[in-house]
Amino acid sequence: MERRQPPQTEEGWYVLHDFRSIDWDAWRDAPQRRRERAIEEGIDYLTAAESVADADEGGSATYSVLGHKADLLFLHLRPTLEHLDTLERRFEGTALAEFTERADSYLSVTEVSGYMSQDFFDDDAEMEDAGMKRYIESRLKPDIPDADFLSFYPMSKRRGPDHNWYELPFDERADYLANHGEIGKGYAGRVTQIISGSLGLDDFEWGITLFGDDPTDVKELLYEMRFDPSSSRFAEFGRFLSARRFPPENLGAYLDG
Amino acid sequence: MERRQPPQTEEGWYVLHDFRSIDWDAWRDAPQRRRERAIEEGIDYLTAAESVADADEGGSATYSVLGHKADLLFLHLRPTLEHLDTLERRFEGTALAEFTERADSYLSVTEVSGYMSQDFFDDDAEMEDAGMKRYIESRLKPDIPDADFLSFYPMSKRRGPDHNWYELPFDERADYLANHGEIGKGYAGRVTQIISGSLGLDDFEWGITLFGDDPTDVKELLYEMRFDPSSSRFAEFGRFLSARRFPPENLGAYLDG
Amino acid sequence: MERRQPPQTEEGWYVLHDFRSIDWDAWRDAPQRRRERAIEEGIDYLTAAESVADADEGGSATYSVLGHKADLLFLHLRPTLEHLDTLERRFEGTALAEFTERADSYLSVTEVSGYMSQDFFDDDAEMEDAGMKRYIESRLKPDIPDADFLSFYPMSKRRGPDHNWYELPFDERADYLANHGEIGKGYAGRVTQIISGSLGLDDFEWGITLFGDDPTDVKELLYEMRFDPSSSRFAEFGRFLSARRFPPENLGAYLDG
Amino acid sequence: MERRQPPQTEEGWYVLHDFRSIDWDAWRDAPQRRRERAIEEGIDYLTAAESVADADEGGSATYSVLGHKADLLFLHLRPTLEHLDTLERRFEGTALAEFTERADSYLSVTEVSGYMSQDFFDDDAEMEDAGMKRYIESRLKPDIPDADFLSFYPMSKRRGPDHNWYELPFDERADYLANHGEIGKGYAGRVTQIISGSLGLDDFEWGITLFGDDPTDVKELLYEMRFDPSSSRFAEFGRFLSARRFPPENLGAYLDG
Amino acid sequence: MERRQPPQTEEGWYVLHDFRSIDWDAWRDAPQRRRERAIEEGIDYLTAAESVADADEGGSATYSVLGHKADLLFLHLRPTLEHLDTLERRFEGTALAEFTERADSYLSVTEVSGYMSQDFFDDDAEMEDAGMKRYIESRLKPDIPDADFLSFYPMSKRRGPDHNWYELPFDERADYLANHGEIGKGYAGRVTQIISGSLGLDDFEWGITLFGDDPTDVKELLYEMRFDPSSSRFAEFGRFLSARRFPPENLGAYLDG
Repeated sequence: MERRQPPQTEEGWYVLHDFRSIDWDAWRDAPQRRRERAIEEGIDYLTAAESVADADEGGSATYSVLGHKADLLFLHLRPTLEHLDTLERRFEGTALAEFTERADSYLSVTEVSGYMSQDFFDDDAEMEDAGMKRYIESRLKPDIPDADFLSFYPMSKRRGPDHNWYELPFDERADYLANHGEIGKGYAGRVTQIISGSLGLDDFEWGITLFGDDPTDVKELLYEMRFDPSSSRFAEFGRFLSARRFPPENLGAYLDG
Repeated sequence: MERRQPPQTEEGWYVLHDFRSIDWDAWRDAPQRRRERAIEEGIDYLTAAESVADADEGGSATYSVLGHKADLLFLHLRPTLEHLDTLERRFEGTALAEFTERADSYLSVTEVSGYMSQDFFDDDAEMEDAGMKRYIESRLKPDIPDADFLSFYPMSKRRGPDHNWYELPFDERADYLANHGEIGKGYAGRVTQIISGSLGLDDFEWGITLFGDDPTDVKELLYEMRFDPSSSRFAEFGRFLSARRFPPENLGAYLDG
Repeated sequence: MERRQPPQTEEGWYVLHDFRSIDWDAWRDAPQRRRERAIEEGIDYLTAAESVADADEGGSATYSVLGHKADLLFLHLRPTLEHLDTLERRFEGTALAEFTERADSYLSVTEVSGYMSQDFFDDDAEMEDAGMKRYIESRLKPDIPDADFLSFYPMSKRRGPDHNWYELPFDERADYLANHGEIGKGYAGRVTQIISGSLGLDDFEWGITLFGDDPTDVKELLYEMRFDPSSSRFAEFGRFLSARRFPPENLGAYLDG
Repeated sequence: MERRQPPQTEEGWYVLHDFRSIDWDAWRDAPQRRRERAIEEGIDYLTAAESVADADEGGSATYSVLGHKADLLFLHLRPTLEHLDTLERRFEGTALAEFTERADSYLSVTEVSGYMSQDFFDDDAEMEDAGMKRYIESRLKPDIPDADFLSFYPMSKRRGPDHNWYELPFDERADYLANHGEIGKGYAGRVTQIISGSLGLDDFEWGITLFGDDPTDVKELLYEMRFDPSSSRFAEFGRFLSARRFPPENLGAYLDG
Repeated sequence: MERRQPPQTEEGWYVLHDFRSIDWDAWRDAPQRRRERAIEEGIDYLTAAESVADADEGGSATYSVLGHKADLLFLHLRPTLEHLDTLERRFEGTALAEFTERADSYLSVTEVSGYMSQDFFDDDAEMEDAGMKRYIESRLKPDIPDADFLSFYPMSKRRGPDHNWYELPFDERADYLANHGEIGKGYAGRVTQIISGSLGLDDFEWGITLFGDDPTDVKELLYEMRFDPSSSRFAEFGRFLSARRFPPENLGAYLDG
């Protein structure tokens, strides 16, 4: 058994999905003044993060998480791990943090791979296709879509005795992914994705974050993909978390139920 | 390996199974006045939810959960995720919430699929069968059955090397599900189900909620289904939770044991 | 692949294994008066349960659980889920409950199946064998054996690609189970079992509770069974919990170490 | 598929691995007098246990556990489960217990099997080999080796579709185990083991406790065994816990860091 | 099936990955004087550990962990388990420990194996290759690289029915590992690794710790390795933890966010 050829990859911004639970008992018991201060400092922190006051580039967004797994999601994209590390700890210094517990998190980094565009990785080739260049840039340094709904899940490719992604020839993998990508194109304008790699960073190989105004568009896309061999045969999925975006200034309304 | 044809789906109401544990120690220690307020605000919240005061349509019901996994189940069906998000947070504002912890939850959306009725999804076909139309409507916007017993579990279809649901031809899947559905018909009037999809919403692919006055009818139905290839070969089940319905006004009696 | 024939089943009493941990820190710190009240109310609750004061029929027993998984097991058998639900909540009202946490539980219902006695299920046959009738009755409404040792574990039958219990012909399953049952007969008088189904009630398909005065008899029986294809090939086991019975009036001695 | 012949077994002492975590926050905050009392009562409990003051025979030893899984291990061997049950609860009555939480445990019973010595189990044979008799006795009622290092892990034999220990003929299993045992003999004087069965007692089928002064001897032994088919093909391992023995009178020094 | 030949191994220093979470609520609430003392004692502990004041040789380093799994990592390498046991407990005596909880840990020991250099293990051969000798020494007693980023994960080799590492002939395993090692050489100067065995010490068979200034170098290395049969076919990975090194004297700045 020879070693298969890995794709080249290029990485962009580091991504932290920072999931928090609200300690509702503490919140209910807190005097009005402490609650006001928590809301104020929370809004300050989130507004500063969303305006990327701490870095030259990146992006942040705030979400309300459905169900018992978490209540809040702070999504941060930044050029370095140090930025994320600081953002994570800086939150702990706010009065809002007193009312939250860390519920979950995921660490990854945006990536494009040579499956998509070998030209991009050729040393001696000038990438003349400006459209492709912009596209790749938009994946490495993505704008967080201004959509109501977010779905996050981590995933890995299978390495089973029958179906082993990492033992497929390069071209076969590229074909699988090209076909898989075709499905996504059918949802252009309705569902946007941020794909980030997490090998060596977190427990799975990739984090997938999907954005859309209508959750059933995301559901339909994932259902269609599940019938594609790239998923049906080779995907191992982790937990799924669903969230709804809200602007930091609505934090008070959020906490008041 | 070509990509298999997914069924078309239509989604209806979003579904939140909101499982809570009672903090019995706190309950025992609470002064009478706080307990009375908790019961009062709990009844108000649940009555408002069951009368769908927060939305144009939907449904809610309240259950006592058996065993250590949870104590209460609030089942909510609503037209949007925002409704569920608000219901979940609004409960935290009640005095009853002080005596509960979130124990579990499941997020999904009612669905019908093209396996059942392709006509329904044909653009250029008028669906003339009014009975079928009503049936589909009743699955997308179901009445919560007025039954004593509820059994909830999430499930996914297998994607194993030997038996992979997502690599079966469409017709084979449709046949499996038609046969599977036949079993359910034998329990008409005794067991009712709400099937809701959760791809992109929660960890499994579907949530199944079964209702019946006699728990052994539910058990018998599931046992019969387990011998059907659709389950025996292709189903992966998650946890099972059992609950008994009670009217919100009995909350005080419930908490008094 | 056709659907296999399920066995007919008959259900008897519902079964709750209610496992509790003692909060030993609280117990040590409690003043004598609170401890005395806890013991008193605990004995009252357990004595009433064991005398089935809350129902026309059923049975209850009290056990000390070994190891860190739990400290106490309350085993309840009752004609309805409502009885179990009430017993579970009523305990929370006792002063003893202040010193316990729920550690685990299992919900099931006693069952006999058509594998054992098809006659029992024939509509037009009078079951003339009075011995068989009594035997079946004793499995549906079992006396809790007066044995020192109890071993509880949940289990399911495998639905793997190679060995799938639910795809075996009825007769093959019946043969497997008849042979399996033969092993148990060799332990008559030493090991007694209560087999209860939990499809739709809890996470596994059955709960098995074994009783014997000598734990090595239970161990030997399980070891012998493990070599039987019914177990070696088709059984998936969950957690195992071991416990020793004690009479409610010994609760004080139990808590004093 | 016929049922395979199980080995006969003989059981000796029951074994409780009682793992505890120290509540270091409480320890740091405790006044000197409470700490002294905790140390004193802890030493009394452990000294009494190690001198087997509570039973006619058996053995106990005290260990410091490495890593976050636990801090202390109390290893108890006694003739009956009742002894272990009492030892476990009696500890909760000491002032030391106030500073500990139960972190893990394992319940088992020492065993010898007919794989080793069929003669031992022949009813009509007098076992004339006094050496073998002493050897078997030393496995059923083992002295706890006076070694610095202990490694504990539970394990089961596989029942997979390809490799199923419980479907192998008796002689094949006996051969596997004889070869496996040969490896151990190469470590005589460096590594000692206590093998105890836990079918019906705890989650796995056996608990393995290895003792040696040099942890790398234990590592080397396990590495060599892993290449033996008995492990490479048929073993499923649980968690591993590592610990260092200390005499009860050093408890104060242990707690002072 | 014969037993395969294990490689000889030589062990060096024991390794403890000691992961801690900060109790941020307690930190925020603590008066300035307690925080100052915690920082001071924390710096003293970490500085002493990094200067190996407690042993003749070894090494320690301090890291900030990203995400919710932990906040701090203390990495200790020492000649004996006793050193690690003492370091772990000594930390609990510091005022900093009051603000931390143990979140995770891993115990292992540096190792070189006969796959790499059989000469090293030949009794009657003088190892004349001084370079190899130095290399092996550097793996048994490694300097902790002075790199910004650390990635830790435990792993085991598969023992599946199709791909079983422990049933491969020695030479095949040696070839796999030689090829695997070739990948690492391509990252010389960018990524450094410490490989430590944990059989009998902790839950997996090895702990892998990778060091690099640029996390994407670590990611790229792991991605390339995943396509190598040694990983693609035979590796089972545990959790992954990511961390950034900081000098102990920056502890105050770290805690201030």
